[in-house]
Formats: sequence, structure tokens, C-alpha cells
Amino acid sequence: MYLFRNDYSFGAPPQVLAALGETSLEGNVGYGEDGYCRRAEALLLDLCQCPEGKVEFLTGGTQVNAVAMAAFLRPWEGVLTADSSHLNGHEAGAVEAAGHKLLLAPAGPDGKLRPELLLPILEEHQNPHTVKPRVVEVADATESGGVYTRAELSALSAFCRDNGLLLYVDGARLGAALTSPQSDLTLPDLARLADAFTIGGTKNGALMGEALVLANPALQPDFFRIKKQMGGVLAKGWLLGAQFEALFRDGLYFELARRGNAMAARLQAGLKALDWQLWVDSPTNQIFLVVDQVRRSALQAICAFEDWRPARESGHTVIRLVTCFATTPEDVDGFLTAAARL
Amino acid sequence: MYLFRNDYSFGAPPQVLAALGETSLEGNVGYGEDGYCRRAEALLLDLCQCPEGKVEFLTGGTQVNAVAMAAFLRPWEGVLTADSSHLNGHEAGAVEAAGHKLLLAPAGPDGKLRPELLLPILEEHQNPHTVKPRVVEVADATESGGVYTRAELSALSAFCRDNGLLLYVDGARLGAALTSPQSDLTLPDLARLADAFTIGGTKNGALMGEALVLANPALQPDFFRIKKQMGGVLAKGWLLGAQFEALFRDGLYFELARRGNAMAARLQAGLKALDWQLWVDSPTNQIFLVVDQVRRSALQAICAFEDWRPARESGHTVIRLVTCFATTPEDVDGFLTAAARL
Amino acid sequence: MYLFRNDYSFGAPPQVLAALGETSLEGNVGYGEDGYCRRAEALLLDLCQCPEGKVEFLTGGTQVNAVAMAAFLRPWEGVLTADSSHLNGHEAGAVEAAGHKLLLAPAGPDGKLRPELLLPILEEHQNPHTVKPRVVEVADATESGGVYTRAELSALSAFCRDNGLLLYVDGARLGAALTSPQSDLTLPDLARLADAFTIGGTKNGALMGEALVLANPALQPDFFRIKKQMGGVLAKGWLLGAQFEALFRDGLYFELARRGNAMAARLQAGLKALDWQLWVDSPTNQIFLVVDQVRRSALQAICAFEDWRPARESGHTVIRLVTCFATTPEDVDGFLTAAARL
Amino acid sequence: MYLFRNDYSFGAPPQVLAALGETSLEGNVGYGEDGYCRRAEALLLDLCQCPEGKVEFLTGGTQVNAVAMAAFLRPWEGVLTADSSHLNGHEAGAVEAAGHKLLLAPAGPDGKLRPELLLPILEEHQNPHTVKPRVVEVADATESGGVYTRAELSALSAFCRDNGLLLYVDGARLGAALTSPQSDLTLPDLARLADAFTIGGTKNGALMGEALVLANPALQPDFFRIKKQMGGVLAKGWLLGAQFEALFRDGLYFELARRGNAMAARLQAGLKALDWQLWVDSPTNQIFLVVDQVRRSALQAICAFEDWRPARESGHTVIRLVTCFATTPEDVDGFLTAAARL
Repeated sequence: MYLFRNDYSFGAPPQVLAALGETSLEGNVGYGEDGYCRRAEALLLDLCQCPEGKVEFLTGGTQVNAVAMAAFLRPWEGVLTADSSHLNGHEAGAVEAAGHKLLLAPAGPDGKLRPELLLPILEEHQNPHTVKPRVVEVADATESGGVYTRAELSALSAFCRDNGLLLYVDGARLGAALTSPQSDLTLPDLARLADAFTIGGTKNGALMGEALVLANPALQPDFFRIKKQMGGVLAKGWLLGAQFEALFRDGLYFELARRGNAMAARLQAGLKALDWQLWVDSPTNQIFLVVDQVRRSALQAICAFEDWRPARESGHTVIRLVTCFATTPEDVDGFLTAAARL
Repeated sequence: MYLFRNDYSFGAPPQVLAALGETSLEGNVGYGEDGYCRRAEALLLDLCQCPEGKVEFLTGGTQVNAVAMAAFLRPWEGVLTADSSHLNGHEAGAVEAAGHKLLLAPAGPDGKLRPELLLPILEEHQNPHTVKPRVVEVADATESGGVYTRAELSALSAFCRDNGLLLYVDGARLGAALTSPQSDLTLPDLARLADAFTIGGTKNGALMGEALVLANPALQPDFFRIKKQMGGVLAKGWLLGAQFEALFRDGLYFELARRGNAMAARLQAGLKALDWQLWVDSPTNQIFLVVDQVRRSALQAICAFEDWRPARESGHTVIRLVTCFATTPEDVDGFLTAAARL
Repeated sequence: MYLFRNDYSFGAPPQVLAALGETSLEGNVGYGEDGYCRRAEALLLDLCQCPEGKVEFLTGGTQVNAVAMAAFLRPWEGVLTADSSHLNGHEAGAVEAAGHKLLLAPAGPDGKLRPELLLPILEEHQNPHTVKPRVVEVADATESGGVYTRAELSALSAFCRDNGLLLYVDGARLGAALTSPQSDLTLPDLARLADAFTIGGTKNGALMGEALVLANPALQPDFFRIKKQMGGVLAKGWLLGAQFEALFRDGLYFELARRGNAMAARLQAGLKALDWQLWVDSPTNQIFLVVDQVRRSALQAICAFEDWRPARESGHTVIRLVTCFATTPEDVDGFLTAAARL
Repeated sequence: MYLFRNDYSFGAPPQVLAALGETSLEGNVGYGEDGYCRRAEALLLDLCQCPEGKVEFLTGGTQVNAVAMAAFLRPWEGVLTADSSHLNGHEAGAVEAAGHKLLLAPAGPDGKLRPELLLPILEEHQNPHTVKPRVVEVADATESGGVYTRAELSALSAFCRDNGLLLYVDGARLGAALTSPQSDLTLPDLARLADAFTIGGTKNGALMGEALVLANPALQPDFFRIKKQMGGVLAKGWLLGAQFEALFRDGLYFELARRGNAMAARLQAGLKALDWQLWVDSPTNQIFLVVDQVRRSALQAICAFEDWRPARESGHTVIRLVTCFATTPEDVDGFLTAAARL
């Protein structure tokens, strides 16, 4: 069985596990006030060229999004997001549970937002009988593998600043995005253009952990209190700091992401060569295929994947195959050989 | 420096770390649907003699309490808890953030609730202009180290069932409680007497993780959805299952807890022998001293501890010293020797 | 100026005002526990042929919807509603503020939901990483003036019962709906087919007040507590009971609604005769026109109306004209004469 | 039967009813954007000498408190209030339902807060694992009839400003407070010392309605949106404006309150003369008696009152008798005569 179900099926590479193990009997202060978290924060702010920023470590992706939205918004404010976003469709109503309406923009198959998709929503919500738009949330990479260019994110950022909106980037797959051949975006760009963004560890080499960069100083005060309130403070907080330190000290994070992207590119190229139908042409580590039910069943016998959504073509399904740091060229080639035989 | 700050200053014993490391490259299904979680659940339900129960693994103590209260309660229902409870004083308003009022009962220094403390609150809240009491929350061990006997918990349980209340036990320090010489309570007792309770991993040998036992089947449906909604689902959920399996397969959990209790007893006995003033006589792994400011400063030079609360005696402070699985007899004796010299 | 802005621009007819005035110095028990509320409840349940029901009086439409949704749902449950619904677009995120996600179905211009619009949403939300659908909310009359037939509501009701969903009807304009020539629906039908529905007073002859009929006994317990919690209990509750008693004792409610509908029909027929473009053909008291900016400006000089939404035709706007119990034939004819001159 | 149950048992005096009746067929703009509300706001701000203020009209007392707290607070912030406050004990957890913890100060029998009661709570909540104190809520008159002097409110106000706290005064019985012989406080004092306060209509001559004065400009933006979201916007908003205009145009509000206070003073003096035991000596329109069960039963036969709380004396109850604008000297004297015969 080839494992392409997702990029959180494997734990962590040896460097990260070793870093964790070393902390075990040191006796550290709890709740993220330890030296590992402090050093990891300094490292990330340095890489982001954002000395006025602050980094908060949380455990998971839904958690960090929920805490950030709850922290940033007043009760009557809402979040502009793509109808296809993880925030809307796969977080079990976490933002609404914190009291905030999502205002859905109709994104295309690449999952990306553009100012022209947001403008009509802004206009409609000037009516005070509606929720006030306040945060624009985008994911990079998007849920369908797309990446924002610097120009695209700059346009969104300018639109937000012109309209009193905060820009928040869900970077659960930020490693895959920033190391994609199609991306010219950098960490300093993100810190300059977004008010806050996450650097996802879970899907790129950490056992768990998301780093939330609060680039905008107005978003920093009292953050610990709401993180604690929403169950996002890890008692043994150094476990997160130590992993991020290991991932970013020597560029391991980007190396792992590049590996996942390279394996995905090899996989996508192989599938094209087999003349299989792609749903989108993905520049990152998620690959999407349109398959009929015969092929879907056959694939289930040789690999783990996820159904993504019904395809436009009747009786067809969009399925998703995901690579990660633990995927090897042998995995990809073996799978392609098996697929060719179907 | 002797480290008595708390029982989550150290990571995990080698058996737990080893179990974690082995999972890393296996390729596991996410979100707790893996074999480790299934086996750990079966193991715990077996130890609890509660085949109709269900176990949910969450990451931390505030998180599991917040998710449980949100899951169990309707919006107009409240939680009866001790005024000195962690739920009330140290979780940053997490239960209220989910919309529920805490109804505070005036517990004594042992932190324990008894039916007669709850009855007046019930009577006052028959008025429909008030919140409806629905959950009774107790901690075992309590925040000041006390433990419930079987008779005490049985009385609470009977009171709850007579009054349409659910009984929830916060077992963040359940290991310390169940292995205390003063306790005759067992896991099967808990499963029989409480509607739900937690078995805390974080404070007794896990890197992180709390097992929530939903003994009452009425509390089980849809739990995953609210756990996800509140950010309590770990993507790499097997990390929790593997730790609990390692802790409970061969009784390691109880062995670690016994070690922490034994070190605390040795510490408390030594302090008594020095004629230092205890705030309460603790049967578990938290020891409380009443110290003046001179002694407090002197202690700060030789050990890590926490200020607990102002003492009744003017200018005095109650401080807390905590032992855990990683505390050694040498730590205790070394500290006592140093303390004797102050 | 002809006043067609909405159906809550006028207070109440003399019978209602007289009923209110008489209560003023009687000395009544507060919070809806008075004789007026009891009698009005009995009257409504009798008209609904629903002896096992319960009626709760609240002050306004957004309030009653918000309280009902908060009362009916568990935190992880959501509401299926039309994308064009008042609940979604004009209640400032009230349902989300109570923690619940709206799941939007793409209704047509008539604003009505049908099972086939709901089915794909149900399927998508079997995934436990999403919100669980639990309530289907429809408005009768809809926001664009449409009405449900008995067959249509029966189909929705059957779909709901087959799928474990509650059916809730927002009857802010129920009078207009039930007295529409296109409707064969009755109060007993509603009580039989819906789990709960409102009978709107505010838009049909009351100063304020919505009667919430809880036809499904499972929805009744503890309702007062959440109504109080959400600020929906009026201290002088008899003011609501007295108005509903006056409106329903002798059929005044239906007489007022019929009058509003008749005036709207006269208005719509007159506009058609002038060859003006209708957006939808409305069978109730809201009339929708598509106008260009020249005509829109000209109309603003002779009558009060509301912009409804951008029209499909570039530079055109859909505007809404509303009649009510206080609209006279002279108002309509005078307006039509003036409109013909534009 | 003499009616002393509460001060919301009667509707409104003729001047208020007449003002309401006149608005009925005028055709007014909805949602509080009408001329009545504008004029009433200007009148109140003028009386408060607070030109930079803003007035929001809401329907009821629990509602206005819940909306104000939700509007003023961030999710991690809490409200300091007396343990005996209406906010804590009689609003069904409305503030907690909006996500905020109440931090209870142990007030004396007069129900008043003083800085020294608040200081220990502030100190305890510097710990970021707790809720951050942000609003101090006091009622004037208090729940047990007490009133704040200018010196007392000034001290609270100074304490709040020194500690980054907002001061909010629940004025559900503000008329009774300001016209009490023991009060030297004025509306301009309130506007100067408090960040926001309410002027209660419901308990002093309005059918319903509370005016919220947002004296602090920082609290004003977007208030309409949250008022709408929480169901606090009345469609026929002019009903509130017209009542407040009628009550404040010529001082009627204060005249009504003085009448209620005078009747209470006459009642309290008469009860003292009978040598009945007062629970507190009340300077406003709520009178509290300690009675045994024999007297309590006897009283139930001659007047309507409310049980307030268990008395300290075993088997005794504190009961409350309330006067209002509709109470006459004949009511009081008749009752006292009947009481003397018991």
C-alpha cells in the first residue's frame, strides 16, 4: 500500500525527535515560558525580519485558526474567506462557535481570493443590520494546492488596508507554498503584508505545532489569556519550542517541504504521462485526480488517498493524493508502476 | 536548585518516549482513528470495567474540561464547582467562554465538595430567572491535594442522581489520587459513580494527553464534532493513544504516581520534622507550606516552587511544592538538608 | 409621500391599542405569567389544534429566531437556510453569535427551500469534521414574498423527519402568507408539519410581539430560562399577551393581513398595467420592481421604499414596496396615478 | 389585596400612553432612526451635560446589561460585580452566555461596591491564567435599595480609571436612586464618572424601555450592530423614543420616582412604628422585612410581595415590598392598618 492519504500520517524526522527527547528530564518551566520557545520565537522573527512581531505556539491547525479569529474580532465582526476554505468546510464550525459569521467568497478551483471577489461582500455589509467584515482569511498553500505570488498577496494586503480589514494567512502548508516553484513569496513578505499568519509544523515535520506570527502589534496584547481560555496552551510548552527550533535552526523545515513538493511533482508528472485527468494542476504537495468509480476502486487496492469532492462529471469523484517529507522516490515510482497496470 | 515547581516540568519516562518514537514512520491514520487509540481505549475501558463507555483523548487539562462542559450542557445550564477549583480560578474563564455560568460552592481547605454544600445552591436555582444547575464538577486529587474516598464520592453520586445532575471528575491528578494511602477509590468505582471523568496524562508521565472517559452513554454521541470544533482533535492522534497504551499496559501509570506520592510524603514528613508549618496535610503529590517572607526568599534560592495564595497570617504566603515521577529520594533529602540550614 | 417602506412603519389598530390601554393600572404579574398571556396561548393552541403545544411570546423577529435556534441546537449543530433568508442576511449574525453555523442552500428568486436543495448539504455534512445539520429554517411568507403550499411544506416536513432534522418556520409575515390567495396552508397544518413556528405580530398589527409555537414537546422544557438569558423576557409580559388576545380573539389578525395583501395585489396589478418590470410576481404584501436609476430617483420623490438588491440588468436596482393593515385604497391609487405621470 | 410585588406591575401613566397612541398612524422609520428617538437622545444628553455621549434605547433590563457587556468586553475579559447583584443572580447567566466570567465581590447588605472590595480581585487576576478584569458593574439603586453618594461613585470611578477598568452603572431603578433623600448624585455626575449607564424606564413609568448612555466615546462605534445581533433592536423603535421623550420633557420621570420613594418611606416608617423588623433601612422604593412563617402567611392574605432570601434567623425569610408611581397613600395606609391587625 502506498500512503498518500495526507501529510500528517507520519511523525517527525530524527532531528526533531532527538530534540524532543533531549528536553525530557531537564526540568523546564511550563506554558511556553521556557528557553526553547523564546529561542524559537527569536529565530522565526529573525527569519521574518519582523522584530516587532510576536510568536505564539499552538498545537493544531483548527485550534490556531479558532483562537486567532476569536482574539482578533469583536462579536459583531466576521471573516471573509473562500467558500472552499478549510476554515469554512473542515473545522466543524469553530469560528462560528466563537460567535463569528463567515462571509463566503466564491473562489475558483485554485482556492485563491482576489480583491474583486471581496468587494461585493464589503458593499453588501455596509448595512448595519449585517455583520461587519473585519478579517480576510486566505490559506497558502490553498486547500487545492494553489500558491499566492507576491503580487497577488500584495494586492490583497493593499485592499485590506484600504478597507480597514485585517489579513490573516493560514499557513498550515506554508512550507509547501514557500518552496513551490510557482511561489516568489518569502517569510519577510508575509510579515510585511499580513497582520498575522501561521507557520504550520504538523504537516511538515513536527509531531504537532503551529507557530502563529502576530506581525501587527495591535493583535498582541493579552493573547496568552485567550489562548489559555480556548485550551490552546500546552502545559509542557517547550515541546513546541524545541520542535520549531529544530526545524528552523538550519533550514530543515524548508528542506522537508521541498522534498514533499518534489515527490508531488514527480507523482503529478507521472500521472499526466499516464494520461490520467487532473482536477487542478498543483504546484505543491497535494495532487488531485478526477476518477470514475472503477478506477477509484482499483486505486483503493494499491494506495491510501482521500475522496475530495464530487466531480462535475457524473459518477466521477475528485480524489486527493498527498506527499510529505517521508515520501520517497521509490514510493512514487512504485505507485506509478502499479497505477499503470490498472 | 531543587525543582518542585509542578508535576509538568519533566517530559516523559523512557518507556513512553520509546513508544512514541516507534510510531513515527509507520504511517498512521489521523485524528485518533488509529490502532493505538483503539487499543488504549479498550485497555482503559477494561481497567474501568466499563464496556459501554467511550474514551476520548485530548491534549490538555483546560481543553478537556472546556470541551466536556460545552458538550454536556445546554446554554442555560451551569456547573457546580468549588470556589477553589482549577475550573474556576485557573482556566481563564474557559467554561464561561463556552457560555456557562459556574455556581461556586464554598469548599474547605481540602477543596472537596459535599452534598450539603450543594443543596442551598440547588434550592436557589429553582427560580427560572437563574441558570439551571446540571453538572457537579470535582477534582480528584483536589487542587489542595485532597482525595475523595469511595464513601464520599458515592454520596456525591447519589446526590447527583437524585437531583438530575451529572457528576464529572477532573482527574488531572487522578494517578496521585488513586495511589494515595488515603484513597480506597478505584477506576471501576469512578466509572460507576461518575458520568464522566478524566485520567490525566500530562501530570503523570505523558508528554501531553488527557483521557476522557464517557461512562454515561448519553454523553457519547457526536462528541468528535465538538472536540474538533473546539480545537481538541490532534491531527496525529496516535501520539496520545501510544502514550496511554504505554502508561496503562503494564501499570506504569500507577507506578509513576506512587513514586510521586512517596516522594511527597517523604518531603512532607521532613518538613514536619523541621517544624515548618503545613497549610494542609496532603496525602498526594502537592505539599503546601505557610511561610513568612524571609523564609520564602530563602527558599527561592534553593528550590523552584509556586506561590499558592496569601495565608491567613498577615505577611505570610502559602507556597506549593510538587513532586512527580522524576523526583528522586536524593532530590528530597538534599532539599531537606538545605532547608534545615536556612 | 406614499409610505411603502415596510410593514412596521405603523403602530397598531385601535382595537389593539385599546386592549393595551386597559391593562395599564390593573396590576399584573410580570414576565408573562399573567392571565393575558395564558389566554392568548390557549387561543393560539386552539386555533392551531395543538393542545400539546406551548406558546412563548417574545418581542421581535431577530430575537425570536436567535432564541429559538440557541434553544434547539447543541453547539456542534447547524441550521439549513436559504442563502437569501433574513436569518442569513439581515440579522447581524445572530445565530452565529449563539455559536451555530448556517448552511446555505441556493434558493431561487421565490426564496423557497425544497428537499432537493438540502440533500447535497446533508451528504456533505456526514463528515464529522463538519457541523451537523439539525434545523431547517424557512420563512413563510419568504423574504421575496413567496408562500409555501401545503404540499410543499409537507414535502419539507417529511424530508426533515426522515433525516433527523427539525423544521422551523419563521412566520414574521405568517398573516400575509396564510391569507394569500396562493396559500392553502393553515395554522393546524403548521402545527402538524413544523416542530416550531412563529406567528408574527410586529408586521401585522401589534406594536411589537412574536408568538413562538413550540409544537414539538421535546423543545419545550426550560425554554423560559434561555428566553430570559437572551434578554427575550419582557418584564410587563402581559403587553404581548393582551395584543395577541386582541388580534386572535375575533380573527382581527387575518382581517388585517388580508387587507395588506389586497392592497399589495392592487398595487402590483396597477404597476403591471403601467408595464413596469416586476422582479418576482408576489402573492403577498411585498412587491418587487426592477428600476433603472432615473425611475428610482423619480420614485424617491413620491414614495418611501427600500432598495432590495442589485438587479441582474446593469445599472438597475430591485426595489421593494410593502403594504400593511394601514394602507388604504386611496394610498395605492394615488401612488399609481403619480407613478403613471413619471 | 395590596400590590407591592414589584415596580413593573403597572403599565404607564396617562401622559406616556397618550404619547404612544399619537405615534400609531404617523408612519415612522423603523429601528430607532425616527425623530422621537433622536429628540429623546438629545434631551437625555442635554440633561446629562454630555454632548459627546450617545444614547441607545433597548427594551429590557437583562437585555441592556447583556448587550452592553458583550459590546464592551473582549472574550478574555470579565466583570467585577457584587455577589448580590441582579447581573449575577437574576439574569439567568446572560453575561456568561456572551462568554464572560463574573468576578464576584462580597458586598454588604446595602449591595454597594467599594474599591477595597475590588482590589484583592484585581491582584488575584494579574495571573494570565485568569480572566482579565475590565468592567466594574454597580447598580444604583442597588438590589437591596441602597444608593451611591457622589463621593462613593467618585471613589469607584477614580479606582476604575487608575486600573484600566470601565465603570458601568445599571440604572434599572435610577429614578428611585437620584430622587432619594440620601442621594446627592445627578445625571451629569453619572455621565462624568461612569463610562456607561442605563436610565431605566420599565420600573418607572414606561411600558418598556431602558436608555443606555454611552458617555465614553470609545464605546460607541458599531453599537447598533451588536444591539441588532442580540435581538435588542425594536422594529418600531419610536415606541421607546416617544416614551422617553414624554418621561423627560417635563421632569415626569423624576416626579414618578419621587412618588414611589415617598410611598416607600411612608410604608417603611409605618412598619417601623409597628415594630416590625427591617432587613435594611432602605432609602428608595424597595422595603425589606424579616418575617417568620406565621407572619409571612398572614401577609400573603393581604398583599402581594416577593420572598427575597432566607434570613439569618432560622425559619425566617426576608421579604420585599415595592412601591411605584402607581402606589397611592391610600394603598399604604390601608395596608398598614391591615398589617397592624395581624
